[in-house]
Amino acid sequence: MHVDFRLGSLSEFRARVAAMPGPDEAAAKRARAHDARLTKPAGALGRLEALAQWAAAWQGRHPPRAERIQVVVFAGNHGMAARGVSAYPAAVTAQMVANFEAGGAAINQLCTVLGAALTVVPLDLDRPTEDMTEAPALGEADCIAALAAGMAAVDADADLLCLGEMGIGNTTAAAALAAALCGGDGAAWVGPGTGVDSDGLARKAAVVDAALARHPEVRQDPLAALGCVGGRELAAIAGAVVQARHERVPVLLDGFACTAAAAVVARLRAGGLDHTQVAHRSAEPGHRGLLEALALGPLLDLDLRLGEASGAALAAGLVRMALAAHNGMATFDSAGVSGPAE
Amino acid sequence: MHVDFRLGSLSEFRARVAAMPGPDEAAAKRARAHDARLTKPAGALGRLEALAQWAAAWQGRHPPRAERIQVVVFAGNHGMAARGVSAYPAAVTAQMVANFEAGGAAINQLCTVLGAALTVVPLDLDRPTEDMTEAPALGEADCIAALAAGMAAVDADADLLCLGEMGIGNTTAAAALAAALCGGDGAAWVGPGTGVDSDGLARKAAVVDAALARHPEVRQDPLAALGCVGGRELAAIAGAVVQARHERVPVLLDGFACTAAAAVVARLRAGGLDHTQVAHRSAEPGHRGLLEALALGPLLDLDLRLGEASGAALAAGLVRMALAAHNGMATFDSAGVSGPAE
Repeated sequence: MHVDFRLGSLSEFRARVAAMPGPDEAAAKRARAHDARLTKPAGALGRLEALAQWAAAWQGRHPPRAERIQVVVFAGNHGMAARGVSAYPAAVTAQMVANFEAGGAAINQLCTVLGAALTVVPLDLDRPTEDMTEAPALGEADCIAALAAGMAAVDADADLLCLGEMGIGNTTAAAALAAALCGGDGAAWVGPGTGVDSDGLARKAAVVDAALARHPEVRQDPLAALGCVGGRELAAIAGAVVQARHERVPVLLDGFACTAAAAVVARLRAGGLDHTQVAHRSAEPGHRGLLEALALGPLLDLDLRLGEASGAALAAGLVRMALAAHNGMATFDSAGVSGPAE
Repeated sequence: MHVDFRLGSLSEFRARVAAMPGPDEAAAKRARAHDARLTKPAGALGRLEALAQWAAAWQGRHPPRAERIQVVVFAGNHGMAARGVSAYPAAVTAQMVANFEAGGAAINQLCTVLGAALTVVPLDLDRPTEDMTEAPALGEADCIAALAAGMAAVDADADLLCLGEMGIGNTTAAAALAAALCGGDGAAWVGPGTGVDSDGLARKAAVVDAALARHPEVRQDPLAALGCVGGRELAAIAGAVVQARHERVPVLLDGFACTAAAAVVARLRAGGLDHTQVAHRSAEPGHRGLLEALALGPLLDLDLRLGEASGAALAAGLVRMALAAHNGMATFDSAGVSGPAE
């Protein structure tokens, strides 16, 4: 199946969210039945078993596969970065994109180990979003373009998609987005990000509170939240999440900023993230609250706070091993292993 | 360095534990200095950074490596298995060894993904240990032989060693060993293992309590504990843990039974497990208490309870990615990326 990713309007995006397919129950059932025959006690592979069933359900096939892994890193710049919300200057976003392209970043090394394809999508880096304390971060046209860029980035032939981001200032945007979608004020959602001090933290909370006060509509409409307090890389992640479900590509979400972006889809439709797994719980403190609000359980908890899809790539290795066990193990019958005593 | 693994006596083993080298502080320092130059905020890779420093310290080199991964699964049979402490018949130990050798078990699939070498070491499967409620599980000669078999199994050229076990009944032995080394009675340490019901659980606790009562010396001496309430595969793990440190091979420990075996080394010498990481927290409930007693933090928490080094193999993938990031990333200088604003 291929869903055209050109997008004319935000209502068209809402319609694409509504049209996302459900799980393939037949494939999931075959996965469960197959699992029950494997040479291990029932349930002994824990979450690895659940991952194999999840992959089958959302790929719509059994056996599921995890050979072709796509990692996409979206990059954007933020007008509010000028307000001292990051330990790093905004120029670092473009410098890190160059680093991704040159193969020097953490995500490049992880992709090499995985044999994964890395897609880097810089989004108008020379045109930061508006300062969200003064205007909507993204106008409607910019928001649509970023959603569409996210949709276009998805490789329909991938077995698994890892999503991540780079954008100086975007943990502040993510905090504002989380507050808009889940409630609470800035202080509830901001954290050190790349490493601001306590003054920086106070500035982040103040920026979030000012943006929430400036755009009261963000509490009502997830797409208004994305446009007013989000960012291009965050909108692109939301677009990619939706497109991946249409293309039957299960998704691994990275940390706080990535999950905040995906939360837009969760708020637009119940179960909208069922085809995703949260790869890890970030050290960024807001991530814990966000995962609780969305009732999502992370696969890893390694104190990561890098972004750039690094946690998602680590989790992709786990998914590949889960599927290898599911697909490759002998059955009790074929191996001549006795089952449990009755 | 090569340490001969022939072992004449338990005191010789004690001496080998005492002679285990410490970390290579120079290599660890180089790892820390290198990490500080990489194109990421300081600390942003969390536990991955610590893993790279750990590997450098215990391999005694910088850069550390994780290309050559050895997975060793020791298998043993237990006299007390006749007491209804497992959901599976004792014959399954040998059947699973055949399954390992035929490539059909979960660990085989994980090793294939990793490109790891799997070493399977069946230890006198046709000669189960004595029933520990009636006699020491292992006589001194058997204990020495199993320790030596564990030492002999270590590939001195490996970059990383994953340890695991297979043995019907061995979560009961592990519970007794944990109780002997950490205190508490059987009920505090037993769990469902491969899946016993509440009657089975009560039988397991009673067997542990009877064994502890029969062998009061196990509370005093870790090697007496290993001999009286352990098992061949558990003694072999303890031997491999010690040998690996001499050979400068960092170790990933698997779940409950593996950690209980390694705890013997921790009790023989403070810091005796510093060259190891606990790969995961098992769903077997005693593992949580054991990790707390040993002050060890697991890398993964995925509700696994399979054994056979499966969790260790998953964690080996993480270590490889941690080292790839550490070794392969560009530095701020080389990539022209700005550091944090002062």
